[in-house]
Amino acid sequence: MFYHVQSLINEIIPDEPDPSAANALQEGLGGQFGEMRTMMQYLFQSFNFRGDGVPYLDLIQGVGVEEISHVELISKTISRLVDGAPEYNGKKFDTPGKGGVATMEMAKEQKNAHHFIVGAQGALPVDAAGNPWNGAWVHSHGNLVLDLMDNLVLESTGRLQKCRIYQMSENKTLRATVAFLIVRDEAHQAAFAKALETLGVNWNKVLPIPKFDSDQYPEVRRLRDAGIHREQYHFRLDSSMMEKIFSGPAPLNDGTELVTLKEPRESYPIPQAPERPEEFAPGLDRELQELADALNDFKEKMQAPKKARAVKRGTKRK
Amino acid sequence: MFYHVQSLINEIIPDEPDPSAANALQEGLGGQFGEMRTMMQYLFQSFNFRGDGVPYLDLIQGVGVEEISHVELISKTISRLVDGAPEYNGKKFDTPGKGGVATMEMAKEQKNAHHFIVGAQGALPVDAAGNPWNGAWVHSHGNLVLDLMDNLVLESTGRLQKCRIYQMSENKTLRATVAFLIVRDEAHQAAFAKALETLGVNWNKVLPIPKFDSDQYPEVRRLRDAGIHREQYHFRLDSSMMEKIFSGPAPLNDGTELVTLKEPRESYPIPQAPERPEEFAPGLDRELQELADALNDFKEKMQAPKKARAVKRGTKRK
Amino acid sequence: MFYHVQSLINEIIPDEPDPSAANALQEGLGGQFGEMRTMMQYLFQSFNFRGDGVPYLDLIQGVGVEEISHVELISKTISRLVDGAPEYNGKKFDTPGKGGVATMEMAKEQKNAHHFIVGAQGALPVDAAGNPWNGAWVHSHGNLVLDLMDNLVLESTGRLQKCRIYQMSENKTLRATVAFLIVRDEAHQAAFAKALETLGVNWNKVLPIPKFDSDQYPEVRRLRDAGIHREQYHFRLDSSMMEKIFSGPAPLNDGTELVTLKEPRESYPIPQAPERPEEFAPGLDRELQELADALNDFKEKMQAPKKARAVKRGTKRK
Amino acid sequence: MFYHVQSLINEIIPDEPDPSAANALQEGLGGQFGEMRTMMQYLFQSFNFRGDGVPYLDLIQGVGVEEISHVELISKTISRLVDGAPEYNGKKFDTPGKGGVATMEMAKEQKNAHHFIVGAQGALPVDAAGNPWNGAWVHSHGNLVLDLMDNLVLESTGRLQKCRIYQMSENKTLRATVAFLIVRDEAHQAAFAKALETLGVNWNKVLPIPKFDSDQYPEVRRLRDAGIHREQYHFRLDSSMMEKIFSGPAPLNDGTELVTLKEPRESYPIPQAPERPEEFAPGLDRELQELADALNDFKEKMQAPKKARAVKRGTKRK
Amino acid sequence: MFYHVQSLINEIIPDEPDPSAANALQEGLGGQFGEMRTMMQYLFQSFNFRGDGVPYLDLIQGVGVEEISHVELISKTISRLVDGAPEYNGKKFDTPGKGGVATMEMAKEQKNAHHFIVGAQGALPVDAAGNPWNGAWVHSHGNLVLDLMDNLVLESTGRLQKCRIYQMSENKTLRATVAFLIVRDEAHQAAFAKALETLGVNWNKVLPIPKFDSDQYPEVRRLRDAGIHREQYHFRLDSSMMEKIFSGPAPLNDGTELVTLKEPRESYPIPQAPERPEEFAPGLDRELQELADALNDFKEKMQAPKKARAVKRGTKRK
Amino acid sequence: MFYHVQSLINEIIPDEPDPSAANALQEGLGGQFGEMRTMMQYLFQSFNFRGDGVPYLDLIQGVGVEEISHVELISKTISRLVDGAPEYNGKKFDTPGKGGVATMEMAKEQKNAHHFIVGAQGALPVDAAGNPWNGAWVHSHGNLVLDLMDNLVLESTGRLQKCRIYQMSENKTLRATVAFLIVRDEAHQAAFAKALETLGVNWNKVLPIPKFDSDQYPEVRRLRDAGIHREQYHFRLDSSMMEKIFSGPAPLNDGTELVTLKEPRESYPIPQAPERPEEFAPGLDRELQELADALNDFKEKMQAPKKARAVKRGTKRK
Repeated sequence: MFYHVQSLINEIIPDEPDPSAANALQEGLGGQFGEMRTMMQYLFQSFNFRGDGVPYLDLIQGVGVEEISHVELISKTISRLVDGAPEYNGKKFDTPGKGGVATMEMAKEQKNAHHFIVGAQGALPVDAAGNPWNGAWVHSHGNLVLDLMDNLVLESTGRLQKCRIYQMSENKTLRATVAFLIVRDEAHQAAFAKALETLGVNWNKVLPIPKFDSDQYPEVRRLRDAGIHREQYHFRLDSSMMEKIFSGPAPLNDGTELVTLKEPRESYPIPQAPERPEEFAPGLDRELQELADALNDFKEKMQAPKKARAVKRGTKRK
Repeated sequence: MFYHVQSLINEIIPDEPDPSAANALQEGLGGQFGEMRTMMQYLFQSFNFRGDGVPYLDLIQGVGVEEISHVELISKTISRLVDGAPEYNGKKFDTPGKGGVATMEMAKEQKNAHHFIVGAQGALPVDAAGNPWNGAWVHSHGNLVLDLMDNLVLESTGRLQKCRIYQMSENKTLRATVAFLIVRDEAHQAAFAKALETLGVNWNKVLPIPKFDSDQYPEVRRLRDAGIHREQYHFRLDSSMMEKIFSGPAPLNDGTELVTLKEPRESYPIPQAPERPEEFAPGLDRELQELADALNDFKEKMQAPKKARAVKRGTKRK
Repeated sequence: MFYHVQSLINEIIPDEPDPSAANALQEGLGGQFGEMRTMMQYLFQSFNFRGDGVPYLDLIQGVGVEEISHVELISKTISRLVDGAPEYNGKKFDTPGKGGVATMEMAKEQKNAHHFIVGAQGALPVDAAGNPWNGAWVHSHGNLVLDLMDNLVLESTGRLQKCRIYQMSENKTLRATVAFLIVRDEAHQAAFAKALETLGVNWNKVLPIPKFDSDQYPEVRRLRDAGIHREQYHFRLDSSMMEKIFSGPAPLNDGTELVTLKEPRESYPIPQAPERPEEFAPGLDRELQELADALNDFKEKMQAPKKARAVKRGTKRK
Repeated sequence: MFYHVQSLINEIIPDEPDPSAANALQEGLGGQFGEMRTMMQYLFQSFNFRGDGVPYLDLIQGVGVEEISHVELISKTISRLVDGAPEYNGKKFDTPGKGGVATMEMAKEQKNAHHFIVGAQGALPVDAAGNPWNGAWVHSHGNLVLDLMDNLVLESTGRLQKCRIYQMSENKTLRATVAFLIVRDEAHQAAFAKALETLGVNWNKVLPIPKFDSDQYPEVRRLRDAGIHREQYHFRLDSSMMEKIFSGPAPLNDGTELVTLKEPRESYPIPQAPERPEEFAPGLDRELQELADALNDFKEKMQAPKKARAVKRGTKRK
Repeated sequence: MFYHVQSLINEIIPDEPDPSAANALQEGLGGQFGEMRTMMQYLFQSFNFRGDGVPYLDLIQGVGVEEISHVELISKTISRLVDGAPEYNGKKFDTPGKGGVATMEMAKEQKNAHHFIVGAQGALPVDAAGNPWNGAWVHSHGNLVLDLMDNLVLESTGRLQKCRIYQMSENKTLRATVAFLIVRDEAHQAAFAKALETLGVNWNKVLPIPKFDSDQYPEVRRLRDAGIHREQYHFRLDSSMMEKIFSGPAPLNDGTELVTLKEPRESYPIPQAPERPEEFAPGLDRELQELADALNDFKEKMQAPKKARAVKRGTKRK
Repeated sequence: MFYHVQSLINEIIPDEPDPSAANALQEGLGGQFGEMRTMMQYLFQSFNFRGDGVPYLDLIQGVGVEEISHVELISKTISRLVDGAPEYNGKKFDTPGKGGVATMEMAKEQKNAHHFIVGAQGALPVDAAGNPWNGAWVHSHGNLVLDLMDNLVLESTGRLQKCRIYQMSENKTLRATVAFLIVRDEAHQAAFAKALETLGVNWNKVLPIPKFDSDQYPEVRRLRDAGIHREQYHFRLDSSMMEKIFSGPAPLNDGTELVTLKEPRESYPIPQAPERPEEFAPGLDRELQELADALNDFKEKMQAPKKARAVKRGTKRK
């Protein structure tokens, strides 16, 4: 059974809209090696798990639960990136603020017209070529060794593709999220590689995939300096045996130690998306809006939860 | 951000394996109107939500979180239904107990050979015709009225199809899960219909879809007698404004009152699936098994969590 | 612009339900070489037609309009074949008349469970393997010679597959419709082959595809004896130049003469499908039914159109 | 059985080619909520209709027949928009008239290269992201209330998406067709909403979806002023009971009255598409063209039908 | 550039037709982890190969070329298994020989009706659930370590699924081919695991996947006894550096030595498939057959090549 | 059984990178009428071939084997076209040579982002709209006449689309490959048309499709002048009866004579693709590279095979 808090697993950094960066990032959400795949693959492997190897189950499922939060993060990031037109920032639908073009006027030239026609300037369950996510990509083989190897290939490909996406735009909104996912995918590579190490494999120096000098990726280096690449969270409200596997020296043989935690040390507020009249979103006219507002003491209570949402937020990583 | 407890939202009732019942139930999991769709549709609508209508957001997202637990429940149910051959129940791979046929010998005649070749006698992310789940089925239109109407059609179709599946097999494992989902889909119809009611629609007597005399579906009647059809859970660890909408008289105009709760009053243990040597699942040979067992004090700790998992379980519904 | 009469292009012959025959026939409706493809292919070729070769346009479009009526006929036929269980014929949902099994009890063992879970015992836009119809199958190349050759291959494959389906069941409902389509596909082969003949090709003896002794297919022979294989209809309410091509000796070099008509010499009543309570179809309870009946003088007027629908029907072919 | 006249349901307004506008408009043709879907969905619901609720059948089927004419209109519009390059207008293949670039030279940079490689500068059965139309999008649930609600969601989404497309280009060819479809989708929303009203639902003020001030969409306003949004046509050559439902006050509660007609008051000539030598379309060389021309008195008869096609055309809307 | 000899890489063992065994085997041909995938994946990786690591290129490409021969073998095997009905063996279309049912009479009840309607009792490019093969399954990541790991997972899954299929039927035609592929997949696991070993990985005892006592699979044991599991062929007519990697101790750490050969030590004749009049295959009537026979000295030369085809065949494995 | 030589069937002509030309060319590789389709269609037809019409079998299969080499050629060509950014030509990753933009900086604006995120600047098994190749496009009808006609339509469409692609870019790398394929598709049209001619069809002047004055396509004219359009290769290491059909006057009735050869008169070296650090391809860091180099006498032997690969290369066509 699953629960939720209205917080993000990483911070959304504001920057200009960038629809083609958003399109590239769709690969990380709805692509064959994106977060929807990792989420569904690990959940299916958990639900179909056989035998009493509970630490393996808890490892796979724990990573799977994290992936739902990655789907949430990456969706929110894409929504930010396609919300409006670059340098437009008009206060009103038809009044540009900084000389940019109104969103719908540039919409038909963007990479995926669905972002504007179908998704109301929001994230879509598709890849960077516009193909919808497909259930056949979920691999749940039943064989533990094979499932772990498949997961390792999945995380390696995910990280490889995100390293490529990182280079495709200097947009800060994009890079903050992509850098976080690069680092988490390294932790997930460690998780599945370590599980295979407990069964005898020695990876020597082939991991992680890909290798690079993180000085070239400052957002990545900052997160690695904070140790985010060697932590894994189990997100379990009862208890988990994940730590039986995810502890001790990292299987990447880089001298780091693995640490299992219940949850990330920090969480972040979810930015509220503005109304988009040109998308008819949410599309409540005055009459309907009054009905919505008439929900008992609505306006008043609106303030509190917003604050409540920020309390979990600790000191930010520097 | 998402969390998990290792419990089920409803009980798995044991019965004989029934692969074609499992195949029919795949529609409820990976079909166009199944639980994977509802889960992804409500999560995408939440992540793309615009404006300050928080009660509507919290309603959609709360139902979405519940759907992840439905995916868990229905996957587990399918796994039970395809695990082994009817009336076989051999203690060992090659020794039938009650005169049935060994699983792999009957496998090629079953409805979807993937259950045995690909899924290791587990659930698959496909529908009852073997087509993989498809991301294009997720509708997130951006327009609040339209999203709510789309969700109402989705829940109505889901419930309609499950009422048809219910009639297709008398298997108790199938019927217990299907009946639960029929009742929850009624609650979800109430949720979205009520939200539209706050915006002015009067549904009169057209809901729920479909209508039937629940005396014909005893498992359904028992759950309705317990009030499961008029409750909605928000599954939020911080706070939710769902109750602003989901309270007061039901929009189905049947005299019932809607109640918002944090979570269901009861939860249920997750049955451990047995090893399946004919599927090479989990496929650890003696050497690998010893390595797995060598995880520090593994065997010992194994007992505890199993008990821990049962504690949340309250008195069962009668 | 398109118009409709509530009549069928061929007669539905009653026989027992036969769900697996219905499944085979789905290939003729939603398969890659089925009627949905022919209909959409010819309509797209017509809408995209270039130049002043009006007789070619009118030929392609005329056949295309006929294909909509084929989609109607084959859908109705499939609906008949999956409507109920063989030898059941209960007057009421739960009272078998002739010792058969109730529909939903046999449903999960049928070839495509979607016929019962999704389609309410009706036709589906899918093929005989359960794959949905796909727009990529529509070929509109723009090049007239190539389009005509593609259409000839399409009609030949359609006819070939229907000759195979004919042999797969002795069900009279199936065979009557399949035989009609075999004969019409022969006429359509003649149409496209003749158009290519006007551009220089001599087909000699390779057509039609496939060749067989029609004495083995009595339903086919009867229709050929009536000349249905050498007629083509333009279905145009204004005027058509189809006859410029479709007249004179048949290109199959079998001594017959081609004849262009506005429409078939006969049309047939559309049988009304009964309600299916087990499918919740149409699913109007007593209250809703009363509302439906309250439509001004509804009951009274119901009788007239049914008779009206039969008037167009002439003497049947023998 | 279906018939055809060689006229359009709305006028094609000439303007410059605009391939990316054409690409956006593909969503309205081959998208999940486009005209191919509405056409097939209503036809399948009609062919699978159960029971004696003939007015409901006639309403669904009548709208379905209209949708075939919409597929015709939107295909023709897309063909116009991708036919040639903007500002090229060369009289001959290699001689630009107004300084634009020749079509094939700009082709590889356009949104969907298939428009030039596959479709010969014509419409394709795909959506705005290049995905082919898919049969799984056709919903025919069997349950009347649910089918009507599904249809209402379909029309609402179609209209919403077209309102978004309208804003994406000022091209007059695009806007004329899109405005017409926006207005007709409003009529279709009225049709299905009214049918649900006869079963008890009161929509109050939530329809139509989306709402907007039509002064911002002059082409839309002009059609609404002409009353096109409150008419429905049954396109039946025999007789129809559609009017039993589609009459009286509009369910959108805007004070208008619904009117059922046999067909639209006006129809429009179909523009002939020019030959495209760079696409080898139609691709008849001199020898083949002479054969085509040799069809008995071809050239002579060519003039007449062109005039004949214009006769139905009445006074245009102003 | 590619060449061909008209011989098979393994022998087709005759047995009765078995359409559902054929359907299961389709997974090995057109499934996500079948031979079409391995073939295309290794060819794409070869064609996209970067850098000067020629031994790695030659290893991947050499295995890829072998996979084309596997596609040939498995297609032929499926063709055998669906060719006719079990125990029918009539000399003529309509004369049963041993009391079985004629093929087309049983066809509509078989697992995939396409085998009879579409494929003329031949192999199809689809999986065991009837889904067509999909290009998105081909992984060519560009990163050498990742490509090798992906290939190892692919071979492991292929072998796992074939071990499951082996158990699903005792048909000798099926088992002979499946056993050969199980052994070759083991060799391919060795190939990619060895390549990763050259880059530092130590696999210890986790391979091959799956592990089993080959005494339970006599056809497999016989091939392993002949050493087929530790050979790899490069199929290159010029030269190959494959042996730089594929030599020395096997990476599965089982004490065997790897051997690189140009081609298998033996090859096998390709059985000629009989005509199938009920499928209209090849469909030449008397007139057309005479034209085919009239090809200069056709009948005479027919004998020679058949013999020629058998010459390469050496002593068979025992 | 299949063999390989490390040579190309035509020469790769160097020119600047051009990602959108590469995208257009994907249609020729992974499109519905591209080389992957022709290859798989002819191989499946060969593997499923029935009866003793060996010359027909050898013709279909021989063309099929050639198509594998076309897949190789076109993949290599696409790889060249997407390898790097136009006018960049930096010696190192970060040092532009001619003022162009670095590859990853322009990547997100290109037609298919998958070329950079997924394919590491290599060819993909997809079409020009980004849709993956689909097995349902393979037609193997079983009926010889129909299969030959289907193949003729396939080759005609392939050639038509390539003639359109030729006009879309002046890039020499693109045009050299496309021109070669245009000429070979003409030969393949001749092959299947001739086979149908042996069965009685007279094509008169409708072929080839499309027709054009080859003076407008100099690369095409040069190859036709060399006679490449009237040769067919059987690529058989044992023997082939292809010549029984492919000899004598061409069926296109243009006065040429058909010639059957074992293989093309010339073959061409395969250019080695450079490493791409920005794609992490091949991704060996210093440690892993040393391990790779440590393969026994690796560096030394590297020179030899490169020369060896060039020996087959004869005098080039002028």
